[in-house]
Amino acid sequence: MIISTKRGTPVEELYKIIRDLESKGVSVTLIRGTDYNVFGLVGDTTVIDEKQVRANPYVENVQRVSEPYKKVNRLFHNEDSIVDVSGIPVGGSQKIVIIGGPCSIESEVQTVEIAEKVKAAGGCMLRGGAYKPRTSPYAFQGLGSEGIKYMVEAREKTGLPIVSEIMSEDKIAEFEEFVDLIQVGARNMQNFSLLKALGKVKKPILLKRGLANTIEEWIMSAEYIAASGNENIILCERGIRTFEKYTRNTLDLSVIPIVKEKTHLPIIIDPSHATGNYKYVESMSLAAVAAGADGLIIEVHSCPEKAFSDGAQSLVPEKFAETVRKSREIAKVIGRDIY
Amino acid sequence: MIISTKRGTPVEELYKIIRDLESKGVSVTLIRGTDYNVFGLVGDTTVIDEKQVRANPYVENVQRVSEPYKKVNRLFHNEDSIVDVSGIPVGGSQKIVIIGGPCSIESEVQTVEIAEKVKAAGGCMLRGGAYKPRTSPYAFQGLGSEGIKYMVEAREKTGLPIVSEIMSEDKIAEFEEFVDLIQVGARNMQNFSLLKALGKVKKPILLKRGLANTIEEWIMSAEYIAASGNENIILCERGIRTFEKYTRNTLDLSVIPIVKEKTHLPIIIDPSHATGNYKYVESMSLAAVAAGADGLIIEVHSCPEKAFSDGAQSLVPEKFAETVRKSREIAKVIGRDIY
Amino acid sequence: MIISTKRGTPVEELYKIIRDLESKGVSVTLIRGTDYNVFGLVGDTTVIDEKQVRANPYVENVQRVSEPYKKVNRLFHNEDSIVDVSGIPVGGSQKIVIIGGPCSIESEVQTVEIAEKVKAAGGCMLRGGAYKPRTSPYAFQGLGSEGIKYMVEAREKTGLPIVSEIMSEDKIAEFEEFVDLIQVGARNMQNFSLLKALGKVKKPILLKRGLANTIEEWIMSAEYIAASGNENIILCERGIRTFEKYTRNTLDLSVIPIVKEKTHLPIIIDPSHATGNYKYVESMSLAAVAAGADGLIIEVHSCPEKAFSDGAQSLVPEKFAETVRKSREIAKVIGRDIY
Amino acid sequence: MIISTKRGTPVEELYKIIRDLESKGVSVTLIRGTDYNVFGLVGDTTVIDEKQVRANPYVENVQRVSEPYKKVNRLFHNEDSIVDVSGIPVGGSQKIVIIGGPCSIESEVQTVEIAEKVKAAGGCMLRGGAYKPRTSPYAFQGLGSEGIKYMVEAREKTGLPIVSEIMSEDKIAEFEEFVDLIQVGARNMQNFSLLKALGKVKKPILLKRGLANTIEEWIMSAEYIAASGNENIILCERGIRTFEKYTRNTLDLSVIPIVKEKTHLPIIIDPSHATGNYKYVESMSLAAVAAGADGLIIEVHSCPEKAFSDGAQSLVPEKFAETVRKSREIAKVIGRDIY
Repeated sequence: MIISTKRGTPVEELYKIIRDLESKGVSVTLIRGTDYNVFGLVGDTTVIDEKQVRANPYVENVQRVSEPYKKVNRLFHNEDSIVDVSGIPVGGSQKIVIIGGPCSIESEVQTVEIAEKVKAAGGCMLRGGAYKPRTSPYAFQGLGSEGIKYMVEAREKTGLPIVSEIMSEDKIAEFEEFVDLIQVGARNMQNFSLLKALGKVKKPILLKRGLANTIEEWIMSAEYIAASGNENIILCERGIRTFEKYTRNTLDLSVIPIVKEKTHLPIIIDPSHATGNYKYVESMSLAAVAAGADGLIIEVHSCPEKAFSDGAQSLVPEKFAETVRKSREIAKVIGRDIY
Repeated sequence: MIISTKRGTPVEELYKIIRDLESKGVSVTLIRGTDYNVFGLVGDTTVIDEKQVRANPYVENVQRVSEPYKKVNRLFHNEDSIVDVSGIPVGGSQKIVIIGGPCSIESEVQTVEIAEKVKAAGGCMLRGGAYKPRTSPYAFQGLGSEGIKYMVEAREKTGLPIVSEIMSEDKIAEFEEFVDLIQVGARNMQNFSLLKALGKVKKPILLKRGLANTIEEWIMSAEYIAASGNENIILCERGIRTFEKYTRNTLDLSVIPIVKEKTHLPIIIDPSHATGNYKYVESMSLAAVAAGADGLIIEVHSCPEKAFSDGAQSLVPEKFAETVRKSREIAKVIGRDIY
Repeated sequence: MIISTKRGTPVEELYKIIRDLESKGVSVTLIRGTDYNVFGLVGDTTVIDEKQVRANPYVENVQRVSEPYKKVNRLFHNEDSIVDVSGIPVGGSQKIVIIGGPCSIESEVQTVEIAEKVKAAGGCMLRGGAYKPRTSPYAFQGLGSEGIKYMVEAREKTGLPIVSEIMSEDKIAEFEEFVDLIQVGARNMQNFSLLKALGKVKKPILLKRGLANTIEEWIMSAEYIAASGNENIILCERGIRTFEKYTRNTLDLSVIPIVKEKTHLPIIIDPSHATGNYKYVESMSLAAVAAGADGLIIEVHSCPEKAFSDGAQSLVPEKFAETVRKSREIAKVIGRDIY
Repeated sequence: MIISTKRGTPVEELYKIIRDLESKGVSVTLIRGTDYNVFGLVGDTTVIDEKQVRANPYVENVQRVSEPYKKVNRLFHNEDSIVDVSGIPVGGSQKIVIIGGPCSIESEVQTVEIAEKVKAAGGCMLRGGAYKPRTSPYAFQGLGSEGIKYMVEAREKTGLPIVSEIMSEDKIAEFEEFVDLIQVGARNMQNFSLLKALGKVKKPILLKRGLANTIEEWIMSAEYIAASGNENIILCERGIRTFEKYTRNTLDLSVIPIVKEKTHLPIIIDPSHATGNYKYVESMSLAAVAAGADGLIIEVHSCPEKAFSDGAQSLVPEKFAETVRKSREIAKVIGRDIY
């Protein structure tokens, strides 16, 4: 950590700052400049709160040199983590996983039918929303436990592990019992109570990036889960909010090499929510695989114009199958395969 | 709602779309253009899901004409709502409220001392964080119930109603019993489970705008609370995330006239979190009052460089008193006063 | 174009609006709703200025149904445009072009050496900055005409067409004479004087997307050039400005399918400026090819840490060669090849 | 400047970096940490290119401690600059200037009429666009020299100095002869050729902030003009591009205290372009004055719905007069007045 002080700071204030910092166990070097003085801090600087330092009226600026995360930081854990989702390994140089399914679970028939098509097309897990975060209180809010039950049914019929989003702590027992990969949605990425509670859970977590969260904040949310005891975390990019309006969000594929450099966690891509438009899903899926993603999560619906939610971004099963097939070819070029 | 279809859409598909829409109870007018056909929908279009319509491969675009909110919409409720916070009226042409206090509750002594200074300076409510949403799991997470107890103590000594942030549903009973104005923080603005639960509560809600949420989404979150039964809602702008890095966030003061145009709810401004820097708080406070805000919520700390969190943006009590004094003069120019 | 009017607009005002609009040659349909009235306009609505309509105090909102561009709009020109760059065809189902070279032209030796390496590695054009847009007036501003001369030299030695950025109208004669593909940089994307002047030029234009410009504004800038007479335009995405700070900009690869849907122009990707970091360039290059880009423009420098500008994002020639090789494999999977 | 190197960087590479930096005249202190090593640089670090340093594969990160601007930096020039606009002083503790006028100059009659109304309402300068930057090549592009002539006419009749936007270097002679305050528009904020040329001009410059430019980049563009010889610069905030769509742009009023802290230049606010909506202009004007702005630039049109451009954001003269009157009252509260 680097702290710079204002021009004209009295020498006694500089020494007061040094004493304060040293009392927290870090070692401090003072570099005297022409317009500013700068302190270099060495040691465990995670104990120091930048904002508190910045509150000192003599302090000009505070900058971190090292990343604020530990458990998920590749610096301290060099090998790739492989996350086991009910027998399917995700991450490292493992095969790429393709997860398909409807935005919302609508009925038992719909769920089983789509699950069978996802499986036939080459998908290896089933996604589906039972509890739905909707912007409007008047929109369909999901079938809840009923929806989870239908997914379990579909898993029994197809063998596909199931992925679903949790929206509140009071459903943790239900998800831990029935769901194979528990998703934290973008809107709850910084619901810290929920993250802490998921740190106690035995199932792996799929942590979506918040709409407007930096990569660092996203990794810090993974750190919350890991720090509470659960290190089985898969990160998922789903587009960020920008000024552009031709797409629902802007898919940030550069997170793939960055997440792999900064952490040891797997990363998958959700091209459906990112673009919000079925026409762009295949193109972004192939791009994600080429860029090195460990998986894709794609919305699939047999009849998008009748979907209860997000039909505009769903692929029909035939198009999904084609996307899986092309992804496999791209995967082979970069030395991997599709699970 | 306006729906446009692609060039070359067969006539039978146009009629299929009309029949589908009419079956939902809206009336449809078809306007035939040169390159596009356009449908105009009249009636209660909140029953129609835009994304579902967009899933039809013949549909080019869907645009809403009317706002998706009802209960908080000024169109259907023309007078200003006045929200009562334990006897203090907020909104309309009422006096402007200034809320002060520390970011985090740190001790009983600190809380009572700051509360007394806030009161002496002209503040009319005490803010303080007992449960703290922190980006890092290693940062101070707040005193919890202990902190709420200290605030209650400070209220007993000073008579100031207390404002504090709730982070999860399981604390609702505690907040309903002890806190006068329950704050939903920016990170939980779309925690829809929490919003629904707060709709059942008897206390007023202070709903902060999410870091990267549009005004429409923010109003929709207020609609969630109102639709669940609690119409005592105060909106609070606290800065949005942009590319600019000289401030922590970008304070969007244009929300003041917009919120007053679109809704009947009161709106207050948090210049401390928006700028993240005590040096800019007074200037933004005066601007907010001049622009017509119904209140300010400002961080105050007796010793910012020792604060457990967010010291950099806290005012010392003397500076807070000066800000209240100047705000009062501005308020009088625009025909209001400070409570 | 759809115009909605406010609740309570007097009937005579509705008819005044209709007469005004009809006087501009469009046909108007009025749809009477419960809370709003809506006008649907059919005909050449490009003659109507949205902002002028919005100035009418009875107007609530104005929305365009059709895109505001004509000449570059795929709706009116269905086949892909193939742009000829001194004999190399770009766009459509042609081979993918890979352009390499230094950010800044530094010397004759450097330029020729890098050009030879770019060619050996499989690049088909040479990029290089002679006039440099730099944020700081104290940074290296480019060699100017001297730099263009060195590039011409390199072209003579290698046969590679050259690509360079123009910064002002008074250099047009020089660029038209010497440069094969004239680049308009991100900061000049809406320098409309320059765009109009380039519409008179015989050479093809490489139009970079502005840092914070929407896809629609970007296409409208292409429309400026086309409307002035030059339809040989290649679009280039180079990252947009977002809140994220781990990368210099956020590369928006979804523009590839969108640009191809909305226009008939070729699109290439600049992963070097987008990410600002050589470590992420290969990954983003492969993603761009997989997503369907018509080309790549990559910074290559023999000794990045000695580069006069942007060394941090330059590939050494060996790494560039590897990127070309892998791109070729990806290109083959999607039925194309590298030029 | 602070440079951190990667874990495991060989000692000889650390010393190579130190030697390289010292050869550029700065003094270097090495702080050895547990995971990283950090160099602190003291001296004139503006000679060092951050991106070049970052190109070294052993370098992890580079951070500036001091600001990259000199001439406009308050650190080196503590008193406020007062810019003289044909006799009207702008900045410091001078009276606040209010500039009014139409977006586009449309005719001689319109210009003179609005100028007289602006003057009668208490405005002290006339704004008007003769050369118009329009997103669409098919929109009205301005009257050009004819428009400048009408503004000169209006100045002769009213005595109001005139403000107009320059779009290309080849008009500099015309602007230097006829215009009192030469505006650089948001889209040209980083047209460095134009900025350099304006550095040679004798008239003051009104430099608008780019749509998506940081405060630092904006100040660096002022530095370009100052470094070329013209220090008579007024900065103008006009809203930045964000995800919010209820306003055209998001007005960032926090720039007022920041610009005054970082530079010695005056700053004025354009609430018309920022909000894009006449309904929000008064509220944002009063906020700007309360926050300490040195002036306002407001669009005024006698008949907004007939304006050739931007009618939606123009005030009618009566409303403008009311805004000036209220601004004066606010100004008095903060110890200033309206010119």
